[in-house]
Amino acid sequence: MSKASPHFLKLHQELIFPVVEEKARALSENSLQAKPLLNFGVGDVAFPIRGAIKKALLEAVEDVCTTRRGYGPSTGHPFLKKAIVDVEYGKYGIKAQEVFISDGIMSDITSLLELFHKDSKIALPNPTYPVYLDSCVLSGRTSFPKKGLYPEITQLPCTLETGFVPKPPRKKCDIVFLCTPNNPTGCSLTKDDLSKWVAYAKKHNSVLIVDAAYEAFIHGKDTPKSIYEIPGAKDVAIELRSFSKTSGFSGLRLSYSIIPDSLMVKLDKEETPLNKIWKQRQAVTFNGPSYLIQKAGAAALSRKALEESKQDIDLYRKCGQILKDAIIAQGFECFGGENSPYLWWKCPEPLTSWEFFDYLLQKHHMISIPGSGFGSLGEGYVRLSSFTTEEDTKKALSRIKEMKF
Amino acid sequence: MSKASPHFLKLHQELIFPVVEEKARALSENSLQAKPLLNFGVGDVAFPIRGAIKKALLEAVEDVCTTRRGYGPSTGHPFLKKAIVDVEYGKYGIKAQEVFISDGIMSDITSLLELFHKDSKIALPNPTYPVYLDSCVLSGRTSFPKKGLYPEITQLPCTLETGFVPKPPRKKCDIVFLCTPNNPTGCSLTKDDLSKWVAYAKKHNSVLIVDAAYEAFIHGKDTPKSIYEIPGAKDVAIELRSFSKTSGFSGLRLSYSIIPDSLMVKLDKEETPLNKIWKQRQAVTFNGPSYLIQKAGAAALSRKALEESKQDIDLYRKCGQILKDAIIAQGFECFGGENSPYLWWKCPEPLTSWEFFDYLLQKHHMISIPGSGFGSLGEGYVRLSSFTTEEDTKKALSRIKEMKF
Repeated sequence: MSKASPHFLKLHQELIFPVVEEKARALSENSLQAKPLLNFGVGDVAFPIRGAIKKALLEAVEDVCTTRRGYGPSTGHPFLKKAIVDVEYGKYGIKAQEVFISDGIMSDITSLLELFHKDSKIALPNPTYPVYLDSCVLSGRTSFPKKGLYPEITQLPCTLETGFVPKPPRKKCDIVFLCTPNNPTGCSLTKDDLSKWVAYAKKHNSVLIVDAAYEAFIHGKDTPKSIYEIPGAKDVAIELRSFSKTSGFSGLRLSYSIIPDSLMVKLDKEETPLNKIWKQRQAVTFNGPSYLIQKAGAAALSRKALEESKQDIDLYRKCGQILKDAIIAQGFECFGGENSPYLWWKCPEPLTSWEFFDYLLQKHHMISIPGSGFGSLGEGYVRLSSFTTEEDTKKALSRIKEMKF
Repeated sequence: MSKASPHFLKLHQELIFPVVEEKARALSENSLQAKPLLNFGVGDVAFPIRGAIKKALLEAVEDVCTTRRGYGPSTGHPFLKKAIVDVEYGKYGIKAQEVFISDGIMSDITSLLELFHKDSKIALPNPTYPVYLDSCVLSGRTSFPKKGLYPEITQLPCTLETGFVPKPPRKKCDIVFLCTPNNPTGCSLTKDDLSKWVAYAKKHNSVLIVDAAYEAFIHGKDTPKSIYEIPGAKDVAIELRSFSKTSGFSGLRLSYSIIPDSLMVKLDKEETPLNKIWKQRQAVTFNGPSYLIQKAGAAALSRKALEESKQDIDLYRKCGQILKDAIIAQGFECFGGENSPYLWWKCPEPLTSWEFFDYLLQKHHMISIPGSGFGSLGEGYVRLSSFTTEEDTKKALSRIKEMKF
């Protein structure tokens, strides 16, 4: 019998989302009629695709049905790269050739790891988006976990003590995953934080992989929307962005990576731009995202679509603020939400993440995500998503007011 | 400086398609006006998306703009899996849970390799679709090539002597890539060929990865459209199919893998279904293809769309037959094309693949693909694609009649 990769046995993190869904499904019809389910769980958008994007999609359908649109470039269509530079990245001096289109940040995380030597030392936040760690595990970067931690992976605590964002460690790491605003803690790295990371990367010759999926929620003056606001970042940082949370593309699938020309790595004895290797990799394994969806992406960067998406984001942020205020007013501790769609709600002692999750679900029919699913240091918290409606937010308020510990 | 994966240095195959494009672009405007360029190069479809699929796409756009369609299942939407079982795979006893939706066979080849132990011995045809070998190289399955061959990869010759299809080797290999009809040789594995491969896999506990991207071109009675026509294949074979060549989706991006429940692998000491591991892998790295494109895929399997795509395929096959007849009438040797969109044209001696390619391009303004780009045993041939129009085929005929050696 053929042998499977042993790395699959090393995945010790439970996949939280299916368990959460299963538990929600188990609620009885009768009880749900009395008190409808409110979903603050998965970070998915609450609205359909908006008008300006619809128009582009209809035109693109007409286009592919009248003109032959075959294989596109494996790194994405030039029209979309141009729109990204014009609207988002030109201001940081990024050029179209440094933009690489993809179908989702999730895919890119796994793929980017393939570019680096297997001995590279990796650091990542704890708690954070579980895909960074799982990708490291499946690509054979780790041995089996000991007491819940992988010996080869450097954990960067995101706790109350660190302001829920990762700080540079003493030791040298070759690849550092950062997520800002951090999922699930809902806190963002400030200009000062990011400057320290760029200095760290310069000192240790590290590469920073910055997941900026939620940048649209950032509005504070001192909180950069891109690491390229920091001088020197283009020599050390890759930045990942998605259309999922900004333009509601979670079902359409579109994202991109910025890999600057000046980010060099050592390929055997030669220095080479990392993006040259990325292009090789993509040429072997990818034909680019769907033409239709890339057309929709370009439309999502039009003035009208950006205005529409800003309205949605403002609404999500307002819902998050209302929820956070109510939670704090009720005597709980709650963090995040300023520059992020996520609230990081401290469980009342002595409840664990899953116990508090169960309490919220069973007693109040509110779906959250147990913090422990994002890493060991997420224990003792649940994550609440503000991708919701005003109506559901209002319903949640009265339920929060009933909570007593 | 961070170290890159050394496997990128091992990629020795030239990427032929960019070189071919570059050479075609270099032709002068003046000469092209006198004799227009005929593209029989890349295997891309020649027509826009057809009517029945257009209707579904327009409905799907309406749908995502009125109803929230967020993250889908990482293995694809049930409605598409059901359509695939109803139309294509139910007749072989395959169930929806054994169908896994993806954005392209190219992506799946690289991803599937991740499931297997790094020590697995791999065999693949020569010549064949270069992505199998390149994926093996980039995932670290090989050392550096010696005299153009990778010592750890077993080459399966597809030459005149083997009828241009791979035959089982004596030695045991754990993973075998098969492509039927084989790209680029244009020849298909018969029922007898496939039965021998299934027997081989059963004897050696191997897994067959069968790329059936071009199955729609198969019409011979003795040539199976699926390996699952062979008894026992469900225990040993994965089959990959694409909507690219059958329904013109090369720009839309949609494919699927069949991984039967009975295909078992050893994960440490336990036997486990391979598809269970695939589900784990996809959950970590993929959110499924775009909802819109999956809707289009389901529509492509409707009776009306299948009739439309059959007309296109019949036309491509007719063009292929006309070209092949003319090439042979002119005194050349030419193979393939019966059950495939590809003709395998033997270069007149003493010309190499690239020399004959250059002759066809410079003198006759016909784009082909040099056979050497598909593996060392492709040297001495060029590949001609019949994804073309009747008009271009007709133009090619008069040019072929001028060829003298």
